[in-house]
Amino acid sequence: MKVGNRHYRSIWFDEAARRVRVIDQRWLPHEFRVVDLRNRDDFVTAIAEMWVRGAPLIGATAAYAVAVQMLLDPSDLSLEESWEILLQTRPTAINLRWALDDMRSHLAPLPPDDRPAAAFRRAAEICDADVETNRLIGTHGLRLIRDVAARKKPGEPVNILTHCNAGWLATVDWGTATSPIYQAAAAGIDIHVWVDETRPRNQGAHLTAWEMNSAGIPHSLVVDNAGGHLMQHGLVDLVIVGSDRTTADGDVCNKIGTYLKALAARDNGVPFYVGLPSPTIDWTIGDGLKGIPIEERDPEEVTRVFGVNASGDWDSVRITPEGVRARNFAFDVTPARFVTGLITERGICKASEAGLLGLFPERAAA
Amino acid sequence: MKVGNRHYRSIWFDEAARRVRVIDQRWLPHEFRVVDLRNRDDFVTAIAEMWVRGAPLIGATAAYAVAVQMLLDPSDLSLEESWEILLQTRPTAINLRWALDDMRSHLAPLPPDDRPAAAFRRAAEICDADVETNRLIGTHGLRLIRDVAARKKPGEPVNILTHCNAGWLATVDWGTATSPIYQAAAAGIDIHVWVDETRPRNQGAHLTAWEMNSAGIPHSLVVDNAGGHLMQHGLVDLVIVGSDRTTADGDVCNKIGTYLKALAARDNGVPFYVGLPSPTIDWTIGDGLKGIPIEERDPEEVTRVFGVNASGDWDSVRITPEGVRARNFAFDVTPARFVTGLITERGICKASEAGLLGLFPERAAA
Repeated sequence: MKVGNRHYRSIWFDEAARRVRVIDQRWLPHEFRVVDLRNRDDFVTAIAEMWVRGAPLIGATAAYAVAVQMLLDPSDLSLEESWEILLQTRPTAINLRWALDDMRSHLAPLPPDDRPAAAFRRAAEICDADVETNRLIGTHGLRLIRDVAARKKPGEPVNILTHCNAGWLATVDWGTATSPIYQAAAAGIDIHVWVDETRPRNQGAHLTAWEMNSAGIPHSLVVDNAGGHLMQHGLVDLVIVGSDRTTADGDVCNKIGTYLKALAARDNGVPFYVGLPSPTIDWTIGDGLKGIPIEERDPEEVTRVFGVNASGDWDSVRITPEGVRARNFAFDVTPARFVTGLITERGICKASEAGLLGLFPERAAA
Repeated sequence: MKVGNRHYRSIWFDEAARRVRVIDQRWLPHEFRVVDLRNRDDFVTAIAEMWVRGAPLIGATAAYAVAVQMLLDPSDLSLEESWEILLQTRPTAINLRWALDDMRSHLAPLPPDDRPAAAFRRAAEICDADVETNRLIGTHGLRLIRDVAARKKPGEPVNILTHCNAGWLATVDWGTATSPIYQAAAAGIDIHVWVDETRPRNQGAHLTAWEMNSAGIPHSLVVDNAGGHLMQHGLVDLVIVGSDRTTADGDVCNKIGTYLKALAARDNGVPFYVGLPSPTIDWTIGDGLKGIPIEERDPEEVTRVFGVNASGDWDSVRITPEGVRARNFAFDVTPARFVTGLITERGICKASEAGLLGLFPERAAA
């Protein structure tokens, strides 16, 4: 997507500098900062400390991490260690494992000397594939928005609620949940996006609001508590969120709080859709509540809120009395029964084993 | 409740100084600041800008506002204007109207010269009655906690989730939702409280966590998004919240986000209780979604978060890019069908017309 007049991806290989570059998202919306990731430690830090985040982007970043490591040491041990070390950076997003498995299976059969070039080629392919996948998710999701728009009176926007940031910053480009939104805006459909702020890290306020603002798409920021009220009063036509891991039975793990929005959508007859690329599907797990590890992060993410202070600097405040203990569960699982449909690169399906296998029949044999 | 070694109410008449005093809650948990409210304008500001908040405390404050105004001008016009002006300060909490009606009906028949003394007597009675009411709510609610505790293994606490602050700071003393918690702790029951931070104004993080911390009651702060996940994993035994207005049919209006917790409680078989004094019941409304006005407040409460900065001062940060629009709905309505029971000063009843009339039969005649 464009930042100012220049097109950016969230991660790219700068050919001239021979460096992998990412947008360091910790500084948004205050500052658009690009950083080089020069070695495996840089990548581990960038993923674990959420300079980059979002399941698809975590996968793409892990792929480039392996590539950079292959430049420094293309040995079998180095490849195996990279797989192990990078897999530990974030436990919930399955795209991380998917990308690491993909890189390992491509590189392991090659002689070490051939690995660096092959690794960079493969990482670039993964990134390009993610862009195309998300573009297709948008094309399929756009149909849903068009259907709602067709029922609206002139001047009435289609109201879409989204949680967290499943935007282009969470992927290589386009986003998952936001891809239909960007395509609807480009198609001239009158839309308005309710942006959940998404505590504790405020990816909605910091990233999605910034994306919508940059793209000139009408939107309103709301606290995470507001979605139920909005739906009760007919102010939401459609919920679209992303996913960090979706099970073979269609259970959706996503940012903490997603489940609460799904409950409200069900209670108010609002369609609840999830945009996800197929690498986000974990075909080895059926029951998401039992099977998906939920990351518990530093409680300080709850007790400390970042923003711009009176001097215009990026700063933080502590919202609790000293000595107050917090817990910080990063994701929750929305059972498939609350999901109206999954929007994948191959089309939209029911959140069920049958639905997913209908789009991915090659998995039925496995 | 005690602050340090001294017992405080949230509002009181200081006999020596001849002043009405309140805790200015905007500074908590950073600073325990007591202020005098000297005239009607002070009271209007204190209620509208939430120096004091919480339905019962809003009612008590309005009663003292009328009393102070009667000292300055005990005329009929002054009494009538006070009713009008104070009623505009907050639209949702019905206790405000209840207290103003009560004061007017007591004072209007009196000669103006008798009104100041009568008004202070009546305001004090309202405050004392609120304390006793909340103590009784705690006594009834304690039974619920005891029942859960009886099913626990030794060393397993009763986990109670609460939203916003329905603590002693929201009432004159004891709190509504917290009264059973304080009484359970005093009875030696092993409890642990999940404190929702309650965006946008963080009354959970700022006030409830401070209350629990001050009282030495084990608790953990969580973001508002976390409750569903906690309930899915069996980490909540009981939800207890307060109410700003409860309809004759048992619909519960409370801080925005309460409805989402009620949905999660229902989906996971967790009992969902509401503690409320009877002045919080609006007997004139059946359907809360249609009948209760939901206050929409300044969007800056969403975009600006308060806390302690690196220098140890109370400060705020802006969490959004400039130009981002926010909406700030302050309350939502939880339909009666999601409420396990209402805990009132007369006992616990079903959230229904029949349930409420069982406890308040005198209302059936009306």
